[in-house]
Amino acid sequence: MPTVRIKYQTFHPSIWPKMIGEVSRDATPGALVQVLGKEGTPFGWGLWNPKSRMPLRVVSHSLDDLDETFFEDAIRRAASLRREVFKLDEETDAYRAIHGDADFLPGLVADKFGDVLSLEITNLAAWQRVPGWLPLLHECFDTRRTIISVDPDLGRIEGIPRYGGPESDQIRSVKIRENGVRYEVNFADGHKTGFFCDQRDNRAKFAKLAAGKSVLDLCCYTGGFSVSAALAGAADVTAVDLDEAAIEMAKRNANLNSVRVKFTHADAFTWIRTMIENGRTWDLVIADPPKFIHGREDEIGVAKYADLNKLATQLVTPGGLYVTCSCSGHLSADAFERIVISSTHRQNKRLQTFDRTGAGPDHPTLSNYPESRYLKLIWSRLI
Amino acid sequence: MPTVRIKYQTFHPSIWPKMIGEVSRDATPGALVQVLGKEGTPFGWGLWNPKSRMPLRVVSHSLDDLDETFFEDAIRRAASLRREVFKLDEETDAYRAIHGDADFLPGLVADKFGDVLSLEITNLAAWQRVPGWLPLLHECFDTRRTIISVDPDLGRIEGIPRYGGPESDQIRSVKIRENGVRYEVNFADGHKTGFFCDQRDNRAKFAKLAAGKSVLDLCCYTGGFSVSAALAGAADVTAVDLDEAAIEMAKRNANLNSVRVKFTHADAFTWIRTMIENGRTWDLVIADPPKFIHGREDEIGVAKYADLNKLATQLVTPGGLYVTCSCSGHLSADAFERIVISSTHRQNKRLQTFDRTGAGPDHPTLSNYPESRYLKLIWSRLI
Repeated sequence: MPTVRIKYQTFHPSIWPKMIGEVSRDATPGALVQVLGKEGTPFGWGLWNPKSRMPLRVVSHSLDDLDETFFEDAIRRAASLRREVFKLDEETDAYRAIHGDADFLPGLVADKFGDVLSLEITNLAAWQRVPGWLPLLHECFDTRRTIISVDPDLGRIEGIPRYGGPESDQIRSVKIRENGVRYEVNFADGHKTGFFCDQRDNRAKFAKLAAGKSVLDLCCYTGGFSVSAALAGAADVTAVDLDEAAIEMAKRNANLNSVRVKFTHADAFTWIRTMIENGRTWDLVIADPPKFIHGREDEIGVAKYADLNKLATQLVTPGGLYVTCSCSGHLSADAFERIVISSTHRQNKRLQTFDRTGAGPDHPTLSNYPESRYLKLIWSRLI
Repeated sequence: MPTVRIKYQTFHPSIWPKMIGEVSRDATPGALVQVLGKEGTPFGWGLWNPKSRMPLRVVSHSLDDLDETFFEDAIRRAASLRREVFKLDEETDAYRAIHGDADFLPGLVADKFGDVLSLEITNLAAWQRVPGWLPLLHECFDTRRTIISVDPDLGRIEGIPRYGGPESDQIRSVKIRENGVRYEVNFADGHKTGFFCDQRDNRAKFAKLAAGKSVLDLCCYTGGFSVSAALAGAADVTAVDLDEAAIEMAKRNANLNSVRVKFTHADAFTWIRTMIENGRTWDLVIADPPKFIHGREDEIGVAKYADLNKLATQLVTPGGLYVTCSCSGHLSADAFERIVISSTHRQNKRLQTFDRTGAGPDHPTLSNYPESRYLKLIWSRLI
């Protein structure tokens, strides 16, 4: 078994180049290697690729022997968590099947959309193994068709060959059903677009609050929150997004569920300012912007969250409900809450916060990789 | 209108004695006062009691006029949040009706248990007003009977007279039904015992995970998690608590729902150590200890959480589920998670965390009083 020695003892799964010590000659790119501690004694097991930005991805700190069956077990455990423990099939046919490191499968993210398994491969080790894993993956998640996606830049760094690996089936789109709501998921150029499973529980929670209310969905993307709210009996639903293609798909999703949503193609910031000038307010407002923060100490990103929340809270009817989201992994839950609070207090308003949620349970985080927690939602009444 | 000037500008609702400036002569204990900023200009409104540890409780930073109808509106708003927004009556007849400062009613906590409203009064202002508020409270929450509780030590500090205020009805106990599970709530000496509404959603979530599993409930109190799990089809349920009276009530709750739970009266720490020695494990383990941390920098309390989690995680079957709770307001969600993680990592185990929850929505927190957030739960698979 090839070996890689690490210079410092850490239980984090991602090992940076400067932390890598001696590497045995037989450690070929993509190989499963035994990880040795700084004294050269057994420390764990990982996947190796010297070209990678993170040359070593540690998958286990067990001192016992470990071989390729570890990954097959990991696939089975991931399926058991979604299907037996969470019983997700009872509420949806779309969920995150494999969540990378958090499911002990670094480099592989897979979403089930009906009978389609959409795989995003981010490292060479996963690329090499996916053809072997696919039959088991399809069996475990009750899927038949495959979509494979590799980011070209990442593929180049990792040394993933453009051809000769796992291949996508020709699939334009698939329809899924989540908690009684239907959505279309599109695949273009091998990339999945149009649907994020991580907000599933939050869409259901939002819909429960929406009945009889006027609802505003800021940065609505393909309309998950708006369509759920409309189907749950909202009095009227307005939704805004800058992405024209997303708005088009959102309209198709509304039609698919036979509900009416007023979709507007606009920049949320500009649009909100106009609505504030017009004195418009809504009973229930959600803001679910794209990732604003792209690294540590991204002050511009922080300012964008402050701005959006300062503006969006002005569109909430006094005593109405406000839901705000951040999917920036670099922003902690506490830091996000502080931004939202101070943006609200500056208008002499208070948040009566009644829930704080995150991504659905099919997006777990690993205790030795806490940065992987990214989605945060704060649910409040505005007073 | 009497006035109280504050020396520093703060939006926190609790004002310490050292922050109090000039007080007008007509500011009698318990009075609604206008709060003035350090320059003497209007700043907000509050309830005044010079004897209190927190002489001023600010209820609004509005510059507009405010009178006693503010509190009646607050009661109506609290009811509307529980009944119209959250539709709690659909799932339970027991919930937190008034949550003190977070519902703009400092000094008053009220739980609805069927037709009984159980009030805990912690300041003079609330004591003086409760007789006037009771008809509205009963109307808003569909209750008829009243239980009043005042902590004697706090009552003495606040100057609450022992007699001549609102009085309790003679009620020994009441039966409630939450998400299909029945519980008995007992009242002894005017204190409510035996039931915490704040874990309602967590009990339901726990029950969903329990079907077919062997379940262990550590610090089970009156059996909320165990009875819910047993009723949801757990294969077997074991529950442990040090409080003999709580165990007795837990047994009654199990009987009330016609389920079998093995209740054990024991100190959890000692009992767990014995079970570890015996090599016993369970598929699903919850630890919901009493408040361990009683102030800032309570190192003993922190050590207790570390100990309990280090021990309890050893009773989880490999690949089984672990739910851990903290109701210590002085311990932040992040700090609690760090304790749980490090207790687990020391055994070379990992937490695959799939949810983080808190108190139910009838226990909101106010954005200018973030310390009031107390209950934290971490839901994980143990690998």
